[in-house]
Amino acid sequence: MSRITLRIDLDGHGSIGPGKIRLLELVGEAGSIQKAASAMGMSYAHAWKLLQEIGATFGAPVVDASTGGRRGGGTQLTTLGKKVVELYRRAEQRAAKAAEPEIDQLKKSARGHTTHRRSIKPKKN
Amino acid sequence: MSRITLRIDLDGHGSIGPGKIRLLELVGEAGSIQKAASAMGMSYAHAWKLLQEIGATFGAPVVDASTGGRRGGGTQLTTLGKKVVELYRRAEQRAAKAAEPEIDQLKKSARGHTTHRRSIKPKKN
Repeated sequence: MSRITLRIDLDGHGSIGPGKIRLLELVGEAGSIQKAASAMGMSYAHAWKLLQEIGATFGAPVVDASTGGRRGGGTQLTTLGKKVVELYRRAEQRAAKAAEPEIDQLKKSARGHTTHRRSIKPKKN
Repeated sequence: MSRITLRIDLDGHGSIGPGKIRLLELVGEAGSIQKAASAMGMSYAHAWKLLQEIGATFGAPVVDASTGGRRGGGTQLTTLGKKVVELYRRAEQRAAKAAEPEIDQLKKSARGHTTHRRSIKPKKN
């Protein structure tokens, strides 16, 4: 299946793209930063850093770990965190639908052949 | 200025995104793979590899170096190469327009504060 991925740059406040959004979704689903990080093959420290970056972009935390206790509760997305995911996914859907004619043409061009490596001799100029 | 960037995955034929498209545009403008590579801070070999990947995705060359001679001619985009750039940029424009309501909301959230690093104590769970 072909699909598009969106990166949105926010006026010098940083950017959000597929990695950060997937991380937020996984934290929301797993209720745990550690589990979300593992599912994405990244370290807890890196996941935490990304979550802090998103928080810095929007000026407030996107995850809430305050419900944890010993053997503890989990981490949940804040209302802001959920809103960011929702807006991004909706933007992605709208974008995919709007760009469908061009994507279909690109797909048709790509489908019109058997994928193979052409061996064209490099030439400097 | 905020903007979106698109990556388009083409059904197992590879993907095209901002880097490959910018490279094609620069080759078209400069008439030279070497100049385009330098402008993007990459090696000639890497640029050539990317151009071959795009060619493999679409089953035909996207650049034509055949006009070169000694002290030679340049490298031009093929009709296919120009078409790929045009379709991608049009897809990007349509996508940005369609996703504008969500992007505006995200921007508003990001603008509503002074960017700073919050120091929230990490907590494992």
